[in-house]
Amino acid sequence: MFDLIAFDADDTLWHHERLYVRAQDKFQKLLSSYADGAMVVQSMYEKETRNLELYGYGIKSFALSMIETAIGLTRGEIRGAEIQQIIGFAREMLTSPVQLFEHAEETVCELAKSYALMVITKGDLLDQQSKLSRSGLGDYFQSVEIVSEKAQRTYEVLLAKHGIEPQRFLMVGNSLKSDILPVLALGGHAVYIPYHLTWAHETVDSQPVGHDDYYELEHLGQLPLLIERLSCR
Amino acid sequence: MFDLIAFDADDTLWHHERLYVRAQDKFQKLLSSYADGAMVVQSMYEKETRNLELYGYGIKSFALSMIETAIGLTRGEIRGAEIQQIIGFAREMLTSPVQLFEHAEETVCELAKSYALMVITKGDLLDQQSKLSRSGLGDYFQSVEIVSEKAQRTYEVLLAKHGIEPQRFLMVGNSLKSDILPVLALGGHAVYIPYHLTWAHETVDSQPVGHDDYYELEHLGQLPLLIERLSCR
Repeated sequence: MFDLIAFDADDTLWHHERLYVRAQDKFQKLLSSYADGAMVVQSMYEKETRNLELYGYGIKSFALSMIETAIGLTRGEIRGAEIQQIIGFAREMLTSPVQLFEHAEETVCELAKSYALMVITKGDLLDQQSKLSRSGLGDYFQSVEIVSEKAQRTYEVLLAKHGIEPQRFLMVGNSLKSDILPVLALGGHAVYIPYHLTWAHETVDSQPVGHDDYYELEHLGQLPLLIERLSCR
Repeated sequence: MFDLIAFDADDTLWHHERLYVRAQDKFQKLLSSYADGAMVVQSMYEKETRNLELYGYGIKSFALSMIETAIGLTRGEIRGAEIQQIIGFAREMLTSPVQLFEHAEETVCELAKSYALMVITKGDLLDQQSKLSRSGLGDYFQSVEIVSEKAQRTYEVLLAKHGIEPQRFLMVGNSLKSDILPVLALGGHAVYIPYHLTWAHETVDSQPVGHDDYYELEHLGQLPLLIERLSCR
């Protein structure tokens, strides 16, 4: 049924968004004498979105956006010592232990016996490689593709490079915008496993409910059975 | 003779290090009331080297290291407005036009007629992709590999992935440490084209002069003739 099963990494295989949420909480507290929490969140989101084209995804970009936001909200008055604290939040994120989702290891291990597996993820090159290595899951994946954007064209190029037909490709992820909709549009199959935290930039309005090649699961542990059932159709 | 010819990008196909040198000059001036130039350079180099494992290569890492250096040298006294100037230096680097080396386009265009070409480069994923796209050279390369480190193992994995024998592989670059020595160690061929600016971290003591598969050229325009001569041996 499938020549390739690919997984998103952050918030699909391991916890991720909560690192950002925690860092942002500390960031809000640090700036609390200059601006209220809602204003910090709003300014930060605007700054990140505006910087995305130039900086791309990942923790270093997030750090630079926090620093720029802090400078803006304090009208340049913030001191180096406070900026060092902000950089500290980012360094904590970069060195934080990788916390695998429940069922991640058993599912990946089981599927690797019968399928070629791949990781397709956005973010900082080094940070993503380091997390995969620290996760202990690295050996289950035949290849790892770290991309700067997950658009339909990205998947098209990736599948062509690996000689995979879209109909024989299954993508598993927690972002409708990045993991699911572009893959379905290309003629591939997609399994959506929602996570309760989603960065506003990744949200979309519509869900592809009713689409033939779209499936939604509650957790990774349900994936092997779904794939087994699909293979018997 | 060769199944694959790969090029380093920064300071092999286009100017790069001089962006760092210019930014560092401005950075020194900005800090001139706190520390003399030599001390800024020394602190910055130490900071960058120490941060490499966590941040990796690229302009965002350089920006964060400049900020941390500035905070250190001013004992936390530096103001947000000055840090914004430092971020401005990095943003200028990220948006600076790609300046191709003389002979880069004609050489790559000519070799692409007979050989599979690849780019193998370190650095920020998005920044490197953006530069390749802006350079106008993108279409000449069958693939682009952006890696977090260029060690012997990196090349080994890359060549295996593309099914290339090391003896049928030629790497062209300006860093003995990253482009030349690991490729020769693997049994590949390497063409070294020195550039007058080299970041201290990329320097090595020994040159592989006398090695059978090692060649040194003055500029990219000499590459097609060298490859033609090698193919007739």
